[in-house]
Order: sequence, then C-alpha cells, then structure tokens
Amino acid sequence: MKIGIVGIGHTKFGKTSEGIEQLMMSACTQALEDAGCPPDMVDAIYIGNFSSSFYSQCHLPAVLSSAFGGGKEITRVETACASGGLALKEAVIAISSGLYKTVLVVGVEKMTEASTDETLAILARAASRTEQKHGATFTSLFALIAQRHFYEYGTTEVHLAKVAVKNHKNAKCNPFSHFHQEVTIDEVLASSIIASPLKLLDCSPISDGAAAVLLTHQNISSRFKKSPIYVIGIGHDTAPVSLYDRAVLTSLPAVIGASMKAYQTSKLTPKEIDVAEVHDCFTIAELVQIEDLGFCEKGMSKVLIDEGRTDVAGDIPVNPSGGLKAKGHPIGATGVSQIVEIVKQLRGEAHDRQVTDAKIGLCCNIGGSGASAIVTILRRE
Amino acid sequence: MKIGIVGIGHTKFGKTSEGIEQLMMSACTQALEDAGCPPDMVDAIYIGNFSSSFYSQCHLPAVLSSAFGGGKEITRVETACASGGLALKEAVIAISSGLYKTVLVVGVEKMTEASTDETLAILARAASRTEQKHGATFTSLFALIAQRHFYEYGTTEVHLAKVAVKNHKNAKCNPFSHFHQEVTIDEVLASSIIASPLKLLDCSPISDGAAAVLLTHQNISSRFKKSPIYVIGIGHDTAPVSLYDRAVLTSLPAVIGASMKAYQTSKLTPKEIDVAEVHDCFTIAELVQIEDLGFCEKGMSKVLIDEGRTDVAGDIPVNPSGGLKAKGHPIGATGVSQIVEIVKQLRGEAHDRQVTDAKIGLCCNIGGSGASAIVTILRRE
Repeated sequence: MKIGIVGIGHTKFGKTSEGIEQLMMSACTQALEDAGCPPDMVDAIYIGNFSSSFYSQCHLPAVLSSAFGGGKEITRVETACASGGLALKEAVIAISSGLYKTVLVVGVEKMTEASTDETLAILARAASRTEQKHGATFTSLFALIAQRHFYEYGTTEVHLAKVAVKNHKNAKCNPFSHFHQEVTIDEVLASSIIASPLKLLDCSPISDGAAAVLLTHQNISSRFKKSPIYVIGIGHDTAPVSLYDRAVLTSLPAVIGASMKAYQTSKLTPKEIDVAEVHDCFTIAELVQIEDLGFCEKGMSKVLIDEGRTDVAGDIPVNPSGGLKAKGHPIGATGVSQIVEIVKQLRGEAHDRQVTDAKIGLCCNIGGSGASAIVTILRRE
Repeated sequence: MKIGIVGIGHTKFGKTSEGIEQLMMSACTQALEDAGCPPDMVDAIYIGNFSSSFYSQCHLPAVLSSAFGGGKEITRVETACASGGLALKEAVIAISSGLYKTVLVVGVEKMTEASTDETLAILARAASRTEQKHGATFTSLFALIAQRHFYEYGTTEVHLAKVAVKNHKNAKCNPFSHFHQEVTIDEVLASSIIASPLKLLDCSPISDGAAAVLLTHQNISSRFKKSPIYVIGIGHDTAPVSLYDRAVLTSLPAVIGASMKAYQTSKLTPKEIDVAEVHDCFTIAELVQIEDLGFCEKGMSKVLIDEGRTDVAGDIPVNPSGGLKAKGHPIGATGVSQIVEIVKQLRGEAHDRQVTDAKIGLCCNIGGSGASAIVTILRRE
C-alpha cells in the first residue's frame, strides 16, 4: 500500500504569544488548505508533543478536538524529541490498517511559557534517573559524545562550528526559522561554553511552534490539490536511555537500527538519498547521524563538512531548512517540521534553499540522547 | 481479523516505593509469564501514561526499552485518564495493519512522588484553560455534572454513596486494590465535602500502579498458554474539553459516540453485555456512564443502583474490580487495568468477585471531564 502526503503546514518557530491551541490549529489549517481538504474529511489526528509541563494545559487531544468542534479521533504520542516522527509513524500504521483514509499529523510544543528553571528541570529528564543524580543534563550528555568523537576520530570544535555556520546560513532562507542571522566560525568558537566542548552556538534554541502534514491512502489522493509525496519507508528503534549502558558513545544505535529498517522497507541505500533533515539538537548530533545513516564511513563526517558536501549545493545536502540548530527546536514539532521541509524539497518549493532536482529525501528524528529514533524516507514520483 | 488477549499483568495499586520502571516491568513480566511468551517474541510495546510531571523521569519508551535491553519499538500514547484505553486501541490498529503480530500494552502512573500542590496543579490541567482561570478543578467539574443530574433526574447524594459502597465492597475481593475496607452509606455522606455534592468518599484516590496485556493476531494465538479473549470492538471519540461548550451537562457525548462505534463494530447491543468496568473517577461518573452506555434510560441509573442490579450478582454488574473509586486510579494504568479485570471475568479467574458465566464484557475509559472516551468490548469464545 502507498500512503502519501498531500498537505503541509508550518508556523514560524521562535518565541510567540500564541497558545498551544492556536499553534496546532494554525499548522493544521495550513495543511488542510494546502491539500484542499475540508476538515470533515479528516478521519483522525495524531499529535506529537513532548511535555505538558511547559504550560498549563494538557489532554491535548481534547483541546484540539474542541478547536475542530468535537468528534475527532485524536491521539497524542510521545517519545521525547522524536514525538513528531513517531506521530507520523502511527498515522501511517493507522491508514495501513484500513481504519482511516485521511489523517492529519501535527507536532507542537509551547516551550517559552515555562521559567528557565522549569525548562532546565524538564530537559534534564532526557537523562536517566541515574544520570540525573550525577548532574547530567541534556547538553552534557551530548558533550560526552562529542569528547569521545574528538578522541576517536580527530573531529574538532571547528568541525562542530562549521555545522552551526552551515545551518544558520540555510535558516536565513527559511521564513519559518527561529534565527535569520548568519554566524561565523569565530563567533561560534567564542560563544559561551555550555558543556565543553559544546558552546552556546552549538546548541538548538528553546522555541515555540507547530508543523502539520496531511496523509492519505493512495486510492483517494487524486481528490486533493497537491500531488502526493509518498512515505516509502519508516524505521523506528530504541536504545538504552543511559549512555553508560551503550557499547559505544560515538554512535547512536537507535539511529543505525531505525535507518536499516527504513532502507530495507524502501529498498534504498544511503547513496540514493538526495537530501536529508537530521536531528541537530547539538552540532555533534548532526555529525554522528551523518555517519550512522551511512552517508559516510564512521568518523568521516568531518571530511563531509570540511568539503562542503552537506551544503545545499553539495552531493548530500543536510538540514537545508536550517535544522534544529537555527530553524529552532519546538520539541514535539521537530519531527513533523523535518517532514514538511523534505516535502517542500521534493515538490521543488524550497526557493533559495532548494536542492536541485531532489527526488528522494530522508528525515532522522531522535529522542533524548538518542535513545529513540525514527527514520522516514519520502519519494516524489 | 481477530485480535486476542493472551496474557495479563497487574501490580498492587496504592502508594509504593517502586519506581515507574519497576512498575512497568512488573506488569509486563507478569503478562508475558501468564501467556508463556518469551520477551523476544514481543514486536512492539504501547505505553499508556498521563504525565511525567508526577516524577523526575520522562521519555518512558526509552526507559522501558532499557529495561528490555534495548531494540524494542515502543510508543507512549496519552489522552489524560483514557491513556490506557488509547494504548490498547493503537496496539490493535498496529496488529491490524500487519506490521506486528505480538504487542504488549502497559498502562502506568507513578503519582505519589509529586507533592500535594504539584498533584493539584497537574490534575487542574484536566480543565480547559478558561475553566482553570475560573478556579475549576477536576473534582469541581464532576460536581457540576452531579448537581445538574440531581436537578434533572432526582438523583441524590445517597445514590452516589451507594456507588462508593458497592465499589469498596468489590475492591475488598480484589488483591490488587488500593483500598480493602468497606464503607457504609453514612460514612460516605459524613466524609468531608470536596466540591459539593462530592465528598471525599465519592472521589478516586491518588495511586501508583501498572497493568499490562499481551495482544496477538489470531493466527499465532495457539502458541500461547492461555486461550485468547478477543477484542471485538473499540470505539474512540472526543468532545469539547470545556463543559460550557457541551450541549448538556448530564451526558458525556464522547462516551455515547465511542460506545456507538464499539457496539456497531461488535454488532452487539447494551443488553448483551454481561459485565462492565466503567470510569468512576467520581461516583457520579459511574452513574452517567451507565446511562450513556445504554444500560438503562437516561436518568434511571438511580434505579439500577437502588435495586442492586449493578452488584456482582446483579443483571449488569459494574466495576466488579472495585473501580477507580476503590481499586485506585493510577491514571495511565486505569484503562489497561479495566481490560485486565474483564479478561479475568471472562476467563472465570475473578474468584470472590466472579460474575457468573460472563462471556461478553465492556470497558469504558474516559479522559479529563469526559472530553475523550474509549469503549472496548471483549468476548470469550
């Protein structure tokens, strides 16, 4: 069976006064309009959202149902920062089962409502309880991964900085980005150290935002305005939550597992991917995923970034949207936002950041310190 | 396609020193042992859980994967107090899609770790933001429903008290219950007023706990020790989250919608249900659901409770487990716990609370003030 995306919606990422209901409805309405789909035709909705702890409203399925006037079958799914990708997976499963024909997927997070202390406390929960007891935070876990990657493969702070420079440059061309200013290598290297070797400009920001896609069964896709972009593979995998339970620090085993499943289902190899959105919550995360997804040998991502091969004009463009790093990272929205960007790239609607003649795209959405991962492959026909 | 439950697991509900990982693993391990299923045979796991705000760990899919040694496809779903029922629905969809053959569903909540103030704040989020601004809480919303039910149908505080008395009596026969003491009508009526007319003994408690079921496709159910109890209908519906957006206060429109879908799928009528577990977060909720599920005419639940027809020995036994009221209400666990009880009843394993020759059972699991509902119908063959 073939399932296609016929509508996309995306709010501006960043700090906003809009509430979570408005953010969800804004992205959903855009996706429905893009597809030319009346709201009544939507059989079900899957919400990707990480935490109601950021704001004073939970039970989001009921909140979104209210906005639609009630009566929709709505499910929220969560697996930390990979919640959006997981929502897409569940929607694909539900259409495959025959229960629904047309399903909306919306990822959303309203992060700026919480105080800094609350935000730190919530994000610290990405670590296992044992890691938390030892003072580990979301950033320090990725700092450990970076330190080990430096030690094993000779990657340096400059390579990390180049990821930030590239992604800020791309984000400047994306009207929905949190940041629109470019940064230089020197600026990244001179920014405050958060958890060595990661500096402020190696980290994705605290953002609000939502993104939505409308999925349909191929049998009815001709009813919509836009040609479908097909979901041809989704892989999902999990790994131990604590870094100390993993065999190596320099790979994310869930990314390897999820991508193997996605490549198998789609009968594709990494070489056939024209463009990728990967989960650069920190610059080191982009480099590790480039390797784990098979775009280069282990340890060789530094060469790709040095040679500009992951630029929009390179042979394997990565994060043309600006990535989490510069487009922003409203947690639950991120996985769906990646899908929206790849759909734009495959439709040829990405304007100044368009990858030439992109036909096959990949999204890699990870949760926490990489303990869960969803890899999705999309194709234009 | 037929999907059956071949294994069940349930922890003691109440306050425990066990962490959320231990609670999940205890219920999962019991369900696997009950079925005679090796952990490797489990293709995926769905977790029903309401809020990580109660404790200092989130990203539960990764936590549970770690406990299994990594590599499982695990999804957390949430729709407030109906999270457990929704997890079952998603697991059924996933098996129907052909992606998986054997799926574990675990509902869990660790509520006693939060302070009283935190618990109040989290539970207040069951109300819409506008309701919250006007001081509404989870209890006061159901108190409004009760007041209106009294006004419209002549239901009284004594009828509510009789629900508590029945459910405490049933809970005494359930080794997993939070409470094992019986209460009298006078004790219920004399207990502290929480939100008039609801008193302390009309309210479900703050509990920790987990429950799990193992689902399989009929083609492989013969590989397991226990005969399957089939899931023959699941209905899911949502309604506006704010009470003021609903046409009437005395019905839960999502329960009516979800039960109609479940009856249609199973081709059954309310008269054919032998035993039901309904969502008595407050005593009034049981009476409203008895009516909305079609076990009697609107407004006539008072007659059923007066005549003892919902007792274990009655013609439509309701909450033989003790219900949320007395068995306890660890939010995410509740929907799965209801399923476990009905499986026991249909297997004939419910001992002193066994409903004679029960063949068809129903579970009604609602979220918040009834803004979402999942109704599941199970049958022994």
